[in-house]
Amino acid sequence: MDFKIAVLAGDGIGPEISVQGVDVMSAVCEKFGHKVSYEYAICGADAIDKVGDPFSEKTFQVCKDADAVLFSAVGDPKFDNDPTAKVRPEQGLLAMRKKLGLFANIRPVQTFKCLIHKSPLRAELVENADFICIRELTGGMYFGEKYQDNDKAYDTNFYTRPEIERILRVGFEYAMKRRKHLTVVDKANVLASSRLWRQIAQEMAPNYPEVTTDYMYVDNAAMRMIQEPAFFDVMVTENTFGDILTDEGSVISGSMGLLPSASTGESTPVFEPIHGSWPQAKGLNIANPLAQILSVAMLFEYFDCKEEGALIRKAVDASLDENVRTPEIQVAGGAKYGTKEVGQWIVEYIKKA
Amino acid sequence: MDFKIAVLAGDGIGPEISVQGVDVMSAVCEKFGHKVSYEYAICGADAIDKVGDPFSEKTFQVCKDADAVLFSAVGDPKFDNDPTAKVRPEQGLLAMRKKLGLFANIRPVQTFKCLIHKSPLRAELVENADFICIRELTGGMYFGEKYQDNDKAYDTNFYTRPEIERILRVGFEYAMKRRKHLTVVDKANVLASSRLWRQIAQEMAPNYPEVTTDYMYVDNAAMRMIQEPAFFDVMVTENTFGDILTDEGSVISGSMGLLPSASTGESTPVFEPIHGSWPQAKGLNIANPLAQILSVAMLFEYFDCKEEGALIRKAVDASLDENVRTPEIQVAGGAKYGTKEVGQWIVEYIKKA
Ligand SMILES: CC(C)[C@H](C(=O)O)[C@@H](O)C(=O)O
Ligand SMILES: CC(C)[C@H](C(=O)O)[C@@H](O)C(=O)O
Repeated sequence: MDFKIAVLAGDGIGPEISVQGVDVMSAVCEKFGHKVSYEYAICGADAIDKVGDPFSEKTFQVCKDADAVLFSAVGDPKFDNDPTAKVRPEQGLLAMRKKLGLFANIRPVQTFKCLIHKSPLRAELVENADFICIRELTGGMYFGEKYQDNDKAYDTNFYTRPEIERILRVGFEYAMKRRKHLTVVDKANVLASSRLWRQIAQEMAPNYPEVTTDYMYVDNAAMRMIQEPAFFDVMVTENTFGDILTDEGSVISGSMGLLPSASTGESTPVFEPIHGSWPQAKGLNIANPLAQILSVAMLFEYFDCKEEGALIRKAVDASLDENVRTPEIQVAGGAKYGTKEVGQWIVEYIKKA
Repeated sequence: MDFKIAVLAGDGIGPEISVQGVDVMSAVCEKFGHKVSYEYAICGADAIDKVGDPFSEKTFQVCKDADAVLFSAVGDPKFDNDPTAKVRPEQGLLAMRKKLGLFANIRPVQTFKCLIHKSPLRAELVENADFICIRELTGGMYFGEKYQDNDKAYDTNFYTRPEIERILRVGFEYAMKRRKHLTVVDKANVLASSRLWRQIAQEMAPNYPEVTTDYMYVDNAAMRMIQEPAFFDVMVTENTFGDILTDEGSVISGSMGLLPSASTGESTPVFEPIHGSWPQAKGLNIANPLAQILSVAMLFEYFDCKEEGALIRKAVDASLDENVRTPEIQVAGGAKYGTKEVGQWIVEYIKKA
């Protein structure tokens, strides 16, 4: 294959982990005889500082013309205290999602044996957890009509049938590729939009007779995910519920710094770590590059390059097993590895494999 | 005092735990020289079966004329599979909230030492958790304009300034009575309604100079509650976020069957367990009556009868210490106590105190 990759490093630790992701991408391409080229573009707070727009038309074009976007992280504390500020890094994220039509956010919740003790949950509950959260990403209250004045405000949780059908289809298809269990999360006992979601899911379910489809209210899902995370295989939900549940899911795994995600849809797909820009660690060479590196694995898998993805996963597992780890997951007395050292160890592993 | 109590036993295990709550109420009133009278009314699936309305005008009048409502639980599996059914027990709940103006739902999240091992979280994380979730209960998407047809649907997350002010006031006041730490949970980086919430909270905060007020996005709150529940003292949020977060909070405590709640507002306050109607256990005398009994403690405390509340809490602690427990929390080899036996043990304890 011939990969044209847009690289958006963003803010904070973004640039440091981005380099490692790119190096892993290159190493794998070389090994498997793929061509790869990179186009770099600015985004986030960095882009606000430089061009006054966190996701400029130029950056959009770079993304649109690429086969995939390798994204790192955006966000800067100088924007944190005023959520009403006119231009904010998050708007860049939302603009990227909308303009690239990234309606499906895919977040695998996976545990790593050697990190189970980092989970806030009791080990026996979380150790078999292995599920995927699929979050609708371009609809609902995020993009519905909004209004605010000094005395009242509203947001509109609006969904159309095609929007619901396409994301549910992603859910059913992931379920087919996995343990064939889909949980549709909604609040159909209260919300009209949820009732339409449930109705459409019930219409579609017979087309996937092998999939066991169940329906769960969002409050119940928030509990079940903690009480019995191994219950879930694939979970699909709307944008706002997904924002909450995917974050809850990632924290129970105890491996937040290691979890990648994919956002796919109508145009170029985006692959990124689920963690943020960790501005306090910027330039310190301490951020864990594994989530970024695993997002490269997801990228290959998206293009059906299974062996390429598997090799990256194998390299990551090996690095963990050999205690080649960044400080936050290093065992007591273990050697010190930085962002770069972990990344390059994995690059070498891939080259030698 | 002279208490006029509306008793709404509802469905499933409701009637069984209700009796124990009433008996405890009576025992405490006798001990402290209060008068008490009860007016019974139907609600939930039971009321749908009997009068076709889960919260009839008659039941509403009984509640309205009372000083407080002692509520148990509603819900029946025969309504579970069709969230679009015209009449459902939940509608009774929503009608009760709206008609009685119960805009503040107060849920203490408390751990009991002897039950810490029941929490899905590691003991060291949850052991010092002791916070209150305050959920706005009569606004937002629950009651905003709704629309649904076969091709599209929406809900409106609408809030007015007075609605926001009154619930934030409850938050600040609870914080003043506790550890003086209020966390306002919103999604102000995305939602217009959240921006108004945050703006109003920022306007009000200077009136409570002793309170440390912080602001947290809902996705972050869902994570923090698991990673460090002891961080929270009082949390306040809107209806839908509150639905999710209060349930998440109750499950981390490991004591779901023991947690009471209060809903207060413009008219008669309602006191109820947070758990549901557990239809499978109906009539088996196995449901834990402690959440219902502790909701009687909250009732007394609401009317500033602190000693009365404290005595009930002492009796509950004693029952746990002496292993007078319903099956789901009984220790291995412990004696068997049913709903009734636990309730009556507490009644006796109060009489003898
Ligand atoms: C930064 C914010 C707008 C964003 C969201 O709410 O979608 C983030 O929380 C996420 O989940 O990617
Ligand atoms: C039954 C349902 C309508 C209700 C709600 O969503 O408010 C319940 O989940 C609750 O939290 O009391």
